[in-house]
Amino acid sequence: MPILRLALAQTNPRLGDFSGNVDAIMGFVQNAAAQGSDLVAFGEMALTGYPIEDLATRPEFLHRARRELDDLATRLLSAGLGATTVVIGFPNGPIALPSLNAAHSPTAIAHNAAAVIQDGRVLGIYNKHHLPNYSVFDEHRNFRPGNSAMIVHVAGCDVALAICEDIWRDGDLMTSIADAHPGLLLVINGSPFEREKDEVRLPLVRKRAAQANAHVAYLNLVGGQDDLVFDGDTFVVNASGKLLARSPQFIEDLLVVDLDLPASRTNGAQIGDGFTVVQASGSTRSHVALRTPAPVERNEDGREQIWNALVLGLRDYVTKNAFPSLILGLSGGIDSAVCAALAVDAIGADRVFGVSMPSEYSSDHSRSDADDLADRLGIAMRTEAISTLVEPIEGQLNLSDVAAENLQARIRGIILMSLSNAEGHLVLTTGNKTEIAVGYSTIYGDSVGGFAPIRDVPKTLVWELAKWRNEAARRQNLVEPIPEASITKPPSAELRPGQLDQDTLPEYDVLDDMLEAYITKRMGRDEVISLGFDAETVDRVISLVDRAEWKRRQGAIGPKISEMAFGRDRRLPVTFVRS
Amino acid sequence: MPILRLALAQTNPRLGDFSGNVDAIMGFVQNAAAQGSDLVAFGEMALTGYPIEDLATRPEFLHRARRELDDLATRLLSAGLGATTVVIGFPNGPIALPSLNAAHSPTAIAHNAAAVIQDGRVLGIYNKHHLPNYSVFDEHRNFRPGNSAMIVHVAGCDVALAICEDIWRDGDLMTSIADAHPGLLLVINGSPFEREKDEVRLPLVRKRAAQANAHVAYLNLVGGQDDLVFDGDTFVVNASGKLLARSPQFIEDLLVVDLDLPASRTNGAQIGDGFTVVQASGSTRSHVALRTPAPVERNEDGREQIWNALVLGLRDYVTKNAFPSLILGLSGGIDSAVCAALAVDAIGADRVFGVSMPSEYSSDHSRSDADDLADRLGIAMRTEAISTLVEPIEGQLNLSDVAAENLQARIRGIILMSLSNAEGHLVLTTGNKTEIAVGYSTIYGDSVGGFAPIRDVPKTLVWELAKWRNEAARRQNLVEPIPEASITKPPSAELRPGQLDQDTLPEYDVLDDMLEAYITKRMGRDEVISLGFDAETVDRVISLVDRAEWKRRQGAIGPKISEMAFGRDRRLPVTFVRS
Repeated sequence: MPILRLALAQTNPRLGDFSGNVDAIMGFVQNAAAQGSDLVAFGEMALTGYPIEDLATRPEFLHRARRELDDLATRLLSAGLGATTVVIGFPNGPIALPSLNAAHSPTAIAHNAAAVIQDGRVLGIYNKHHLPNYSVFDEHRNFRPGNSAMIVHVAGCDVALAICEDIWRDGDLMTSIADAHPGLLLVINGSPFEREKDEVRLPLVRKRAAQANAHVAYLNLVGGQDDLVFDGDTFVVNASGKLLARSPQFIEDLLVVDLDLPASRTNGAQIGDGFTVVQASGSTRSHVALRTPAPVERNEDGREQIWNALVLGLRDYVTKNAFPSLILGLSGGIDSAVCAALAVDAIGADRVFGVSMPSEYSSDHSRSDADDLADRLGIAMRTEAISTLVEPIEGQLNLSDVAAENLQARIRGIILMSLSNAEGHLVLTTGNKTEIAVGYSTIYGDSVGGFAPIRDVPKTLVWELAKWRNEAARRQNLVEPIPEASITKPPSAELRPGQLDQDTLPEYDVLDDMLEAYITKRMGRDEVISLGFDAETVDRVISLVDRAEWKRRQGAIGPKISEMAFGRDRRLPVTFVRS
Repeated sequence: MPILRLALAQTNPRLGDFSGNVDAIMGFVQNAAAQGSDLVAFGEMALTGYPIEDLATRPEFLHRARRELDDLATRLLSAGLGATTVVIGFPNGPIALPSLNAAHSPTAIAHNAAAVIQDGRVLGIYNKHHLPNYSVFDEHRNFRPGNSAMIVHVAGCDVALAICEDIWRDGDLMTSIADAHPGLLLVINGSPFEREKDEVRLPLVRKRAAQANAHVAYLNLVGGQDDLVFDGDTFVVNASGKLLARSPQFIEDLLVVDLDLPASRTNGAQIGDGFTVVQASGSTRSHVALRTPAPVERNEDGREQIWNALVLGLRDYVTKNAFPSLILGLSGGIDSAVCAALAVDAIGADRVFGVSMPSEYSSDHSRSDADDLADRLGIAMRTEAISTLVEPIEGQLNLSDVAAENLQARIRGIILMSLSNAEGHLVLTTGNKTEIAVGYSTIYGDSVGGFAPIRDVPKTLVWELAKWRNEAARRQNLVEPIPEASITKPPSAELRPGQLDQDTLPEYDVLDDMLEAYITKRMGRDEVISLGFDAETVDRVISLVDRAEWKRRQGAIGPKISEMAFGRDRRLPVTFVRS
């Protein structure tokens, strides 16, 4: 039996940064080659970053990607790395403009593809068959489906290729691949993190391994891109589903593993219709001492995974957009405390700036809790009292009630944006998913900012994450970053004397369960009520959710961690009347 | 030859308002029946409004739609209207959850459908075959394609059905329909307005008429729904492509026309595979005096069409969301002047409120031009000077330069939002497409508001529309609504002394041409330069456009009038690095 030394490069591309991405790719191939790898694989669209969205419909972008791919092949050859077979995801186009006959989008002019490179040339290109067009994905909009399967003959082994969604669909492609009896099915992915998603990936991959009676390598991107966080979680199983190797989540990694595979059936031969066979050169390796790195232990604490996903999403938004620093308002409450702790974990305390903006309605504890937080985190904090800024406007416009409450929030928004304009910080907005769901925020007030770290985190989970983060610090004998008082005190917007969130909203544990049913589970009103909730409350909450859509449309982006985030994951009309 | 008396109901549904929509439908059927119509047709999703977006994935919504459809059939029968055949668009579902095998979205559980109703029953349902998934459409996300064509046998005639995108694709469906030799092809649409789109629809319909050697009736919705404006433009051509009847654009209409059709071939017979034949009762009509209303003359002035589309989009956003009134800042400039004139045309001067918010940098003419505008439009205007509101913040935060400029815009935003909160107005934001493209605005400042009437109107077109609107007033001997000075003076944000837009931007005619090439035509940098633009300017403009994506994501919605509007028509990453 030949041995394939496989290298899986779990990289964090920067979208559109061809120079930077190609440099990084060169480094990974160098490293893999130095370890004697036969085949080095990169993730879905690793050349460009992912998802490229409508850039896929711009010929200039596609021409550039192809040029960079060809240049990469040449550079690899020049660097003495030509013998290593490289598989890498890229957008393959522009292809001839489709006529309106076709079943797909008339603006789609590219395939979502994987190139096979060796000896300074692109030996073959596999085009993704199955294009996800649900949740956050619009791939039928931007790509045309491929229709030919591919086997790469490398180092005496047969390696079948697939891209992400391809393995999620039963049917022709998976059957054809199984019938071709490859030694390895290599799947390159751009699969965003979701709570508990790893509980789905591994069983699916095991199913494909059993179906094809082959090893399966699952390779994912890592990194944040706008509202998505790619968590990595690259791994390899054998035909019996045994986990042979696994990369850590949330960081770049090169996983090199020896696979003991059946000898190739394709050495010069054809395998049925609809298959392209790519012959890579390179001799068969056998009887080496097998490199089988112990699979990295997965952390099964869901809270830690979510925390890490949020940190990565925030860090990459800041660094990929080249912001020098972050600024956020610190109210003493739990949301801003968690956001500040995430910010410090993401980019370090010296680049995070807090602003306390007390009003006449701010309690003493909110100021002291904010101070305490800043001390614990070691971040700079300044205080800008708002009363003297609010009064002239309130007086001139004769404002009261909700208008006066919103004014306070908007003055705070102005302060943060002014400091951002003057000093270059990215403003974080600290709203959680629960308040975004019911519109419990002031638009252009507390919602101002370029990034919303916890927009997909329900209030009850915000508390859980805070507790977990403090526990984690305790376990390491470090200062707990989040003041206990911020976790335990009843939440309040403090826009009028004695105000509490629960004056106008149900208890958060009830509210979050209701929102999960209505939003994530797409349940109707009657179905939600049948879960045991009070009908009047359900009606009020649904009405709040429906009517807040216009605010959500103008909200900042932030990392998706749930099955159903707001934004492109949930597309609903603003103008919508329940009758 | 039998005569079919066809009624085409160009209705303006309110999305989700089943009660209101069904009541309106009853009225239209009553009217059509009173005129002796054999068949009354309604537009795509006329029962629910369109587009329903992800509501199509919510079982409750689909169950409700089906219940309302069945109730409509019963109500029609009870009202003595059972004999009239009704064709109406609705979402047909929920259908059994698809497995991941299918080529379409796993969350799509409905068809985009047309029901045929008669005698208190749903006789048949046609499911749309071709699902647009480009531009603003996400139909592969939300619907499953149908696979059976349909002929309705009514009053001795054969009527084939199609829905919107169905007729835009050559191939099987159109060929099958042609082979079935129907007398009439009835196409129900939800086709949004775009500049010059009517130049495409009529030739396409004529092509289908020739292909099938049949009459074709093209029926469209009318009305505004979020960022889309449905313009109506319902019409009928005969097999030779002659225009027999046409409804006016932008208003509801019932078009009743007698069509002299070949006798049915389907009376009890089957027509090939893949066809469903629905037998509606009703006897053949012949030898009547033909009702052939003269087609409404189309206004071929593109500016008038655009103006009317903008007015309708704005009016329907206000009325369908039940806002009592509008408020907007009046700067004396052309953008706010055009928005105010649109607002008055949309909902009347008594519901439009202007606010002049001068600063120390405001010129005398900006105040007098704003006054003049308010006088011409007959709207209430108040003045709120901002200097005393700006100074405390500027002083406390020690702001200068851009931070101080943005502060002025943000204080104005606060004033408008405060008045909205206190008095209930919808705030209009007056940014045009050019400034939204290059990010020439202050986020949370002049961008605040729930609706952006001219967000898809480039600056040069704003001027053209202003001139046209004044000309139109002149032709009717009415007061020209827009002050001449607002049209002719050089544009300025007036955030510092003597500031002019052209200090930092290219001339608007150059800039708009450049943006058209880069954005609408999806040209690359080199291609734009090859049109004759200065390379350095092109690079600067492209960079401005790319970097303003985060602001656009947080911008208000507004009516699409171009081939490529910002928003769901153009989906690009925020985090995107040009290297």
